[in-house]
Amino acid sequence: MDRTLVKEARQKMGSRIRLCGWVHRIRDLGNLTFLLLRDRSGLIQVVLEGKDHPELRLETVVKIEGKVVANEKAPGKVEIQAAKVEVISDVEYDHLPLAVNSGVIKEGLDTILNHRVLSLRNLQVHGIFLVQQEIIRAFRDFFRDRGFTEIQTPKIVAEGAEGGAELFPVKYFKKRVYLAQSPQFYKQMMVAAGYERVFEVGHAYRAELHNTTRHLNEYISLDVEMGFIKDENDLVAIENEFLRYLFASLPETCGEELSRFGVELSDPGVIPKLSVGEAQALLKAEYGKRLPAGNIDAEAEKLLGRYVKEKTGSDFLFLTGFPVSKRPVYAMPEEEAPDLTKSFDLLYKGLEITTGGQRIHSYRMLYEKMQAFGLNPEDFGFYLDTFKYGVPPHGGFAIGCERLTMQLLNLANVREASLFPRDVDRVTP
Amino acid sequence: MDRTLVKEARQKMGSRIRLCGWVHRIRDLGNLTFLLLRDRSGLIQVVLEGKDHPELRLETVVKIEGKVVANEKAPGKVEIQAAKVEVISDVEYDHLPLAVNSGVIKEGLDTILNHRVLSLRNLQVHGIFLVQQEIIRAFRDFFRDRGFTEIQTPKIVAEGAEGGAELFPVKYFKKRVYLAQSPQFYKQMMVAAGYERVFEVGHAYRAELHNTTRHLNEYISLDVEMGFIKDENDLVAIENEFLRYLFASLPETCGEELSRFGVELSDPGVIPKLSVGEAQALLKAEYGKRLPAGNIDAEAEKLLGRYVKEKTGSDFLFLTGFPVSKRPVYAMPEEEAPDLTKSFDLLYKGLEITTGGQRIHSYRMLYEKMQAFGLNPEDFGFYLDTFKYGVPPHGGFAIGCERLTMQLLNLANVREASLFPRDVDRVTP
Repeated sequence: MDRTLVKEARQKMGSRIRLCGWVHRIRDLGNLTFLLLRDRSGLIQVVLEGKDHPELRLETVVKIEGKVVANEKAPGKVEIQAAKVEVISDVEYDHLPLAVNSGVIKEGLDTILNHRVLSLRNLQVHGIFLVQQEIIRAFRDFFRDRGFTEIQTPKIVAEGAEGGAELFPVKYFKKRVYLAQSPQFYKQMMVAAGYERVFEVGHAYRAELHNTTRHLNEYISLDVEMGFIKDENDLVAIENEFLRYLFASLPETCGEELSRFGVELSDPGVIPKLSVGEAQALLKAEYGKRLPAGNIDAEAEKLLGRYVKEKTGSDFLFLTGFPVSKRPVYAMPEEEAPDLTKSFDLLYKGLEITTGGQRIHSYRMLYEKMQAFGLNPEDFGFYLDTFKYGVPPHGGFAIGCERLTMQLLNLANVREASLFPRDVDRVTP
Repeated sequence: MDRTLVKEARQKMGSRIRLCGWVHRIRDLGNLTFLLLRDRSGLIQVVLEGKDHPELRLETVVKIEGKVVANEKAPGKVEIQAAKVEVISDVEYDHLPLAVNSGVIKEGLDTILNHRVLSLRNLQVHGIFLVQQEIIRAFRDFFRDRGFTEIQTPKIVAEGAEGGAELFPVKYFKKRVYLAQSPQFYKQMMVAAGYERVFEVGHAYRAELHNTTRHLNEYISLDVEMGFIKDENDLVAIENEFLRYLFASLPETCGEELSRFGVELSDPGVIPKLSVGEAQALLKAEYGKRLPAGNIDAEAEKLLGRYVKEKTGSDFLFLTGFPVSKRPVYAMPEEEAPDLTKSFDLLYKGLEITTGGQRIHSYRMLYEKMQAFGLNPEDFGFYLDTFKYGVPPHGGFAIGCERLTMQLLNLANVREASLFPRDVDRVTP
């Protein structure tokens, strides 16, 4: 007999079926035992005769054969009258370190992450990654439909794209190389290679010592790069369009998981924009908050998020006009205000989830900028050489996938949105 | 005026359009200049009046406005009579290091890889990665349609999944960690976490000193793991089914690129199987080749590939029944022949592109196996602990994406199927 999934059982009312899954809950009621069986598709009530089932402990993997009957009182209004129960895989524990079968796990985040395989069995936690999968799928579908090619670029690199010291060194045979901070150089090079429009879903690595609720040292970067743009507004427009698409598609692909989190998504519409200068003036006027030129810190992001939500109803805000000094060397300067760049950030509920902008595509300009930044152009050999061979105006952005997931589901910590998070203290499980 | 892509020009016969792209070829003909313009969608002939266009060197990025007219002699039977040509992005070289506009690049592989951005502009090379993208897309579509969840597992890990010393060490703050050799432990843990069926498209790292035509040190692994299997035959069956799906879908999604490589795909049908014992007997009888017990070396793979092709017409061959000593500790032994495992390899045109098998799902059995392998179970803490909490029978496999691409397109070197390959000597570009 083939296996039936829990969610398909209802279509087989009256038949004998075979289910496989985990013992989610178990309850003795005199001559009967009620069991909730969990598989990847959901939960179903199973009724066993007799109360002696010592082999059936929580999380035991079982195969059950029985008849599907209607029961108004059962969850989903269907239950299985078991004729046969077989243990497929046993358990060996004194007590479970966390309650898989609770609605929301009550244990602390460290316990949840230390016992990741168990916590992922919890339906609420399971839902996070079903939503994340659909975010990534929507990202791919949206950009592929618009002529973008999916790429996989190397994570072992000779130098950093963002500069700075936030790199993890790798011992690579006799060389010292690094983990990529971002696919920046490579996605630009793929535009230059004639692919024109590329996207990537891949890991990025930041050796930041911050141990906050919003930093991961290994994260999933949803990267986009696009050639033949007019300026950064083309990028802002396509990211805005993507978010509208995402918010329209998620209720269809994972509506059940969203409701489990009490999340209702509404069309983000046209996302408001503020320049960094305007944002700083506003922070000073409204909250008495003063910031160094060009700087928007984490608290400022929160305040701006709250302000824009109150004034416009939007959860999102584009920040534009970052100064040259706050952006990497490759950021394209404004023609009319050469101290400012054609770059932007996107805040979602007061948290930066995207950085993007137009890049310099002229060999000469990039060479001179490197010198002005105190960098030695010789150190950027193959990247800089690219621009000798005709590169169109281009730019792009990257969305932090775990941050987007976290904000969308109102999670308290970005680690909750990573299957196996890596931070300063954690490299296992 | 909006930009028109080259491949859309033919639909605008008689209109004035704007094209953007690279100067692919240029030819003076007295009073006329013929130019081939290349964009991501293809090539088109452009006719300019006059012969003096010193600004138009090969690979210059240009914007062209002109009228679309029919011309039987032009490639694609359409040409643009240019009214306006503007340089968007200049070039700065003495001579191009390779001929982008040749059919097949004649320069050696080192030149091709050293100047990767330029070589990727070549249409033949460009095609490799359009095909690779479609292989990955087909992989995702196939497994998602069958209830598999896409996952992204960490590449920074505390220990190796395959054992052995082939690991790249990473300096991670004050710790020494490693790049993942395979998502093996994590994909098993995700099955155990109740996702039951998972797949991943991600990088894997092997610190192998081999510098051959079929080894990369960073490669794309197409990983599958599946719970509630009967045995390894379920895995062989689903991989076979995937390959049939792939070969049916590629001609639809990238038929043009396949023909550029002269590749015609036919249904692989039911792939033949041989046990390692049978394969060794055959190698001895047919080719006088003797091998140590359980071993199939690279030459043996080639001979077997050729033999099976001649006898059955199949490009593929499943090898089964590898001995316990040749497989990792987690490989499930056969009940009736406990020296053999329920694992398999898949050869494609005489090259191993897949390793897979059923895994041990019993805590006790795994614990004892580790001891028998001379491993300390304490070193496998979180992985081993997983099996205390009820793990269904499961198994999976991994397809080397670059190897599959290489064999499918009959490339001579696996590096040709990697955008930016990493080998013992190469970490740039």
